[in-house]
Amino acid sequence: MTDYGRQSLEMHRKHRGKLEIASKVPLASRDDLSVAYTPGVATPCDAIAENPDLSHTLTIRGNTVGVISDGTAVLGLGNIGPAAAMPVMEGKAILFKQFADVDAIPLVVDVATPEALIAFVRAVAPTFGGINLEDIAAPRCFEVEAALQDIGIPVFHDDQHGTAVVLLAALMNAARVVGKMVFNMRVVISGAGAAGTAIAKLLRCVGHSVDYCVSVRDVLVCDSRGIISRDRDNLNRYKTELLAFSNLENRSGYLADALEGADAFIGVSKGGLLKPEMVQSMAEKPIILAMANPDPEIMPDDARTAGAAVIGTGRSDFPNQVNNLLAFPGIFRGALDARAPRITESMKMAAALALAETIESPTADRILPDPLDTSVAVNVATAVAAAASK
Amino acid sequence: MTDYGRQSLEMHRKHRGKLEIASKVPLASRDDLSVAYTPGVATPCDAIAENPDLSHTLTIRGNTVGVISDGTAVLGLGNIGPAAAMPVMEGKAILFKQFADVDAIPLVVDVATPEALIAFVRAVAPTFGGINLEDIAAPRCFEVEAALQDIGIPVFHDDQHGTAVVLLAALMNAARVVGKMVFNMRVVISGAGAAGTAIAKLLRCVGHSVDYCVSVRDVLVCDSRGIISRDRDNLNRYKTELLAFSNLENRSGYLADALEGADAFIGVSKGGLLKPEMVQSMAEKPIILAMANPDPEIMPDDARTAGAAVIGTGRSDFPNQVNNLLAFPGIFRGALDARAPRITESMKMAAALALAETIESPTADRILPDPLDTSVAVNVATAVAAAASK
Repeated sequence: MTDYGRQSLEMHRKHRGKLEIASKVPLASRDDLSVAYTPGVATPCDAIAENPDLSHTLTIRGNTVGVISDGTAVLGLGNIGPAAAMPVMEGKAILFKQFADVDAIPLVVDVATPEALIAFVRAVAPTFGGINLEDIAAPRCFEVEAALQDIGIPVFHDDQHGTAVVLLAALMNAARVVGKMVFNMRVVISGAGAAGTAIAKLLRCVGHSVDYCVSVRDVLVCDSRGIISRDRDNLNRYKTELLAFSNLENRSGYLADALEGADAFIGVSKGGLLKPEMVQSMAEKPIILAMANPDPEIMPDDARTAGAAVIGTGRSDFPNQVNNLLAFPGIFRGALDARAPRITESMKMAAALALAETIESPTADRILPDPLDTSVAVNVATAVAAAASK
Repeated sequence: MTDYGRQSLEMHRKHRGKLEIASKVPLASRDDLSVAYTPGVATPCDAIAENPDLSHTLTIRGNTVGVISDGTAVLGLGNIGPAAAMPVMEGKAILFKQFADVDAIPLVVDVATPEALIAFVRAVAPTFGGINLEDIAAPRCFEVEAALQDIGIPVFHDDQHGTAVVLLAALMNAARVVGKMVFNMRVVISGAGAAGTAIAKLLRCVGHSVDYCVSVRDVLVCDSRGIISRDRDNLNRYKTELLAFSNLENRSGYLADALEGADAFIGVSKGGLLKPEMVQSMAEKPIILAMANPDPEIMPDDARTAGAAVIGTGRSDFPNQVNNLLAFPGIFRGALDARAPRITESMKMAAALALAETIESPTADRILPDPLDTSVAVNVATAVAAAASK
């Protein structure tokens, strides 16, 4: 157990979880009761019954997000089940409040099938202004999220899109540091799960229907069996879909083959996968974003020695922490403020650009702002709300 | 619109609902983040994965209740749907916090069938230490609650059992005022919905398997077509079940027939149903608990003129307010403290006795404590936890 682990266990035991409910209104007198509860409360109920849209302004709905997980892919711990996923969901909820004043309610759910999870979210939708799906295993997460885009409020799987947004911002600023253009880059993604797939899509502007979109020249996605290519058999449906917009030159082979001459490596896979000789085989001034947790695909020192020009990880004890905290609070704040019915590709792109622009002059050791910088969410929210209103 | 209604609408608009999420832990530094979120949070997750029981002590679960409604029977407003039910659920949630330091999360759900509501509650159960079902129409509410008694945490339909507990306490103290023994009484209940059915069961100790139970001699339940009796046809399943323990002398007729010689009237039906001549036909010193909202089955002045000895209503502007607030916070506080897997008949009976005993010397104008008296929930909780531990 790490020292943080010990302290965390102690904190959870002492406080019995990390969040609580607080009233925003007084309840001290009979009059208070009559206004906040019966009989007065019948009036806002009636108003919403007449015009359901008022639920967003007369109840907590307009500022409240459901953080929902089935516990099938929690951190690096895997399928530990809903009850054990709760400490992560609570953590996410308090970060929402702290960084974007969004009230987030953690719900861990025991469901056997994707269909049951879809039914659950549909049922609970009238409670919330948005749904943050969290720590749901691939490929289930793709099916669940896709089935829920029509429910009238944003449904956003943060492990996919939050990661992709921060990653794109990091790549844009890293490109400025090394003097390359993003649209000329060939990028290799190690990991074809939830995050890897979403990153590939965002980097290639899949589903994008707007004026402005930054697309890299080519993306290669590698899973544990190598490059995802037309030559592979038994690819699942979601990996087959990647072929439509990745690996334009139909390369095959392993991660080492993919990386030869590549401009950037993006790791959302396993610690230690990226060897120094692979970095050496990349194009000039390679960008390494190695986000496996807790051990990155390559340690920053080793990457630097092998010639990496910009290095980011998921860890707070190295420079350039690629952390979802830079995206999800602002994205949901913006979506709630605009009362967006879904989070579109343009809103994600706007979030990535706004995030990248919070760093005026990126350097090799500073391509992203500090995750604790509270101004980030404000900037992201403003950009997301503007994109939503278009 | 009443003045309370106007104020309530204004309050809801101004605050956008009545509750918010608050963090119990600091999030100001990188170390804070590492303890409350990743990487430290993996340790409590692992601990719960190994021993799921720890979810009650390491997460919000141990102090958190889900307040869940499908919006099919909201106050006196009827089936107004989930979104419009939210102001009531939020009110309930802040009352839980204020009166028993229970964190309650309001969830309004859009489900077409009782089966879907049952599946929803089963799925979300790992989030909570208890479930308060609220404002669900009869007979759906009976089926839903019954199907959920095995999920390992209490599932309690407050409109049934909370009402029944407060009512029994009121009746016990009213009996002391008029010098009658509860077990000698014949009681007439007007209303065979959720509340009426639960009151009949509790007054007749249905499902009770313990040493101590206060049972009235007989109960007659009336619906809009009259006394529920063996002579009636097309009774639904739940009304048929009432015959097993009500109307022992198989009376038939209307409310007026039921009340002849009865000791107490309990109204959970409609304003104005109880006529002065019916009160006059009752036994000596009749007890009238007329809880229809906002207009009671008979106005207190009319009941008094007709000879009622003790009069209670659901309203705060008359003496003897029969208010669920006297029961549900303490019942859930006690159940959570004892980590009870369900709320048994003994726990309800213990709650009613504890509530009655908060009044040392009942009088005609004081058979129940003030709903704002915060000591009530403490007494109820202690009694409920003790009953749960037996």
